[in-house]
Amino acid sequence: MFTHLNTRLMLRAIQLAKRGRFTTAPNPNVGCVIARGEEIVGEGFHYRAGEPHAEVFALKQAGTLAKGATAYVTLEPCSHYGRTPPCAEALIKSGISKVICAMVDPNPMVAGRGVEMLQKAGIDVQVGLLEEEARALNLGFIKSMTKKMPFVELKLASSLDGKTALANGESKWITGSCARADVQRHRAQAGAILSTSATVIADDPSLNVRWSELGEQVQAQYAQEDVRQPIRVIIDSQNRLTPAYQLFHLPGKTILARTEKGDEDWPESVSQWVVPTRQNSQQIDLTELMRQLAEAGINHIWVEAGAGLAGGLLDAQLVDSLILYQAPKLMGADSRSLMNLPTLTAMDQVIDLNITDVRMVDCDLKITAAIKRS
Amino acid sequence: MFTHLNTRLMLRAIQLAKRGRFTTAPNPNVGCVIARGEEIVGEGFHYRAGEPHAEVFALKQAGTLAKGATAYVTLEPCSHYGRTPPCAEALIKSGISKVICAMVDPNPMVAGRGVEMLQKAGIDVQVGLLEEEARALNLGFIKSMTKKMPFVELKLASSLDGKTALANGESKWITGSCARADVQRHRAQAGAILSTSATVIADDPSLNVRWSELGEQVQAQYAQEDVRQPIRVIIDSQNRLTPAYQLFHLPGKTILARTEKGDEDWPESVSQWVVPTRQNSQQIDLTELMRQLAEAGINHIWVEAGAGLAGGLLDAQLVDSLILYQAPKLMGADSRSLMNLPTLTAMDQVIDLNITDVRMVDCDLKITAAIKRS
Repeated sequence: MFTHLNTRLMLRAIQLAKRGRFTTAPNPNVGCVIARGEEIVGEGFHYRAGEPHAEVFALKQAGTLAKGATAYVTLEPCSHYGRTPPCAEALIKSGISKVICAMVDPNPMVAGRGVEMLQKAGIDVQVGLLEEEARALNLGFIKSMTKKMPFVELKLASSLDGKTALANGESKWITGSCARADVQRHRAQAGAILSTSATVIADDPSLNVRWSELGEQVQAQYAQEDVRQPIRVIIDSQNRLTPAYQLFHLPGKTILARTEKGDEDWPESVSQWVVPTRQNSQQIDLTELMRQLAEAGINHIWVEAGAGLAGGLLDAQLVDSLILYQAPKLMGADSRSLMNLPTLTAMDQVIDLNITDVRMVDCDLKITAAIKRS
Repeated sequence: MFTHLNTRLMLRAIQLAKRGRFTTAPNPNVGCVIARGEEIVGEGFHYRAGEPHAEVFALKQAGTLAKGATAYVTLEPCSHYGRTPPCAEALIKSGISKVICAMVDPNPMVAGRGVEMLQKAGIDVQVGLLEEEARALNLGFIKSMTKKMPFVELKLASSLDGKTALANGESKWITGSCARADVQRHRAQAGAILSTSATVIADDPSLNVRWSELGEQVQAQYAQEDVRQPIRVIIDSQNRLTPAYQLFHLPGKTILARTEKGDEDWPESVSQWVVPTRQNSQQIDLTELMRQLAEAGINHIWVEAGAGLAGGLLDAQLVDSLILYQAPKLMGADSRSLMNLPTLTAMDQVIDLNITDVRMVDCDLKITAAIKRS
C-alpha cells in the first residue's frame, strides 16, 4: 500500500515534527512534507500553540507547486476553526491531490473528520504510514484525548543495586553530569514536573529548565528566548511549604496540591489547588490530582520525587513509563531503596514492565520501561 | 606496524581460540592461524589440557606449506617441555619465517622466553596485535599467573529496583528462562561455581552444567560427551550440610570449605577443605579460600549466592566482574536487597564499577561491570 518513497518522506515529516518537542505543549508535535514524486517542495512543523500548524508552513513554502502534489502529515489535518483555520481546508484550496497521514486524530470527537473533508473534496487520502512512530511523538496528547488523564513518566536514579541514598541520607551525586543534563531535556519536553514537599524541604531544588544545560544539539534547534518552563506541581498535603524555597521565585508557574488552602503570602505565579484525600488517608488522592491536571490541559507529566511518591503513583497505576538512571555503584542493603510499595506476599503481585530502551549516558545506564497494566 | 591483513588473520585466531572455552580449563584458550600472505594454510586451537596446543594442530594442517609462512598466535608459544613438547620448537622446525603473537605469556617466570627462542632461530617475531581481545580470552589464566588469585565473576539477579525476593522469601522466578540459559553458559566456562550452605539449604540447587540447556549455538561446537562439570565450592562455615542434598550426588567434584572437618559420610567426589576464619569471626576467610583455590589450579570462579556472600566478596575486594541480570519488575522497598555491605557513612565509600557491556537477554537486562579497585 505504501511505497519506499512514501516511507522516506513520512520519516522526514516525523523528523520535522520533533523540532517542536520543546515548545508545542500542550499542542501536539506535527510535521508536514509536500512532495512532487521524490522532490520535496514544502516542509513545516508546528512550533508553538497559537502559531500556524505544520501544513500551513509547508503549503506556504510549496506555493503553486502544491497543486497536484502529495502531502505527508504525521497527524490527521484538523477540520475545525480554532485559533487557526482548519488545515484540511487549506490543503483543499492548495490543489493538493493526495494526502498521507500517519494517524487519525486521537480525539474520538473529531477523529476521521479531517480525512472525510479531504475525501469529499476529491483528494486521495491514505492513513496509517509509520503510525507507531507518529504516536510516539505525542504520548501526552494522545493519552489526554483518549483517557482524559496525563501521560506520566517517572524518573528515578539509583545505584546498580537499587539504592538512592545512604542510610544517613547522603546521596549527592549518584549519577553523573551527563545523566543530569539528560534529565534537563526530559523536563523541557514535559507539561509539568511533579514533586513533593518532602523533596522541596530536603533539597530546595529549582525544578526548572536551564537552557545552558540542554546540550549543544538541543540548543542549536531551540533558542534561549523560547525556553518554556514546565509548570511545577508540588504535592503538599500537610501545608508544610512556605514561600521561602527558591523554586517559588524562579520563572514559571507553580501549583501547590493541598488538601486545604493555606494563608501564606504566595507570589502571583503560585496557585493553590485543593485536591480531595484518599479514603481513610490524609494524603491527597493522586488519581484525582492527575484528573485535575489533565482537565487543566497538562497532558505530559515528568515526576521527580522520592520513594514515597514513586511507590504511590505505581500503586495507583498512574505511571505510563519509567525512566531509570543507574549509576555504576553498589551501596548495600542498608542504603535507602528506590520505591515504597505495599508489602507484597506473592510474586504475581510484583509490578511488571517492558524494557523499551537501554542506553549508556556517559558512565550511567538509562533504562526506559513501559508499565504493563494488570 | 601491523597491517589490516594481520589484524584480520589474528581475529580469526581469536575466534578459533574461543572454540575451546568450555573445555580447556585450567589451561588457557589459544588459537593459531598459519597463512601465506592472505591464504590460510593451517588453523588450530587448544581443546583440552593434555591434548596438543593450537600451534601443533595448525602446523599439522599446513604441512610443508608452513615453510616461509606467517603464524598468528593469540598467546606467546610455549618454550618448555610440559605434557607436550614446546610449540616454539615445533614452529622453528616447520620453517615458519614470521610469528605474530597477540600477547606474551602472562606467567612472569616464562614471559618472553618463547619469543626469544623463535628469534634466536632467525624468525621475525612481532607482539601486541589485538592484545586486549586476546587477554579477554583468558581472564582467569592471566589473573592466576600474575596475582596467584582466581578471576571472580559474581552473578546476581534482581528486579529493576534491586530486589531479589519478597519479604517472605518468595523469589521464583525473577528472571526469565533465557537468562537462566545464559547462566548455564557462564557456568560451563568456569573452573568452579562458588556458593554457600545457606543457598544449598534454601534451594537444594544442582549447581551443574546441563548440556541440554546450553542452547543450539553452543551445542553445535561442544559435544555432549565433552561436558566438563566445574568444581562446586560450597562455603559451610558451621558444618550445616549433610550428604542429603542433591548436588553431592551429581557428576562433578564438590569442595566443602569449612572451619573444621565433619565426620559425615561423604561420597568420594566430595572433599572437605579446612580454611582459617577471619579474625574475630566464625566465618571462613574468603581471601584465604581464594588463595587456596588458585593454588589448586582453579583460576576462574563463577559465584552464585545470596546477599551475604556477594557483599562479603565485594567488601574483601575479591570480585573482578559483576554479571547482573535485571528482570523488568518492581518489588518495592520491603523486598530483600541484592547485597549486604557494611553500613556506609559517606558517598566516597560506595563501590565503583565500570559498566563494560549491556544487553537484553529476552525480556531481561544483562549488565556486565568491572569492579574498580580502590
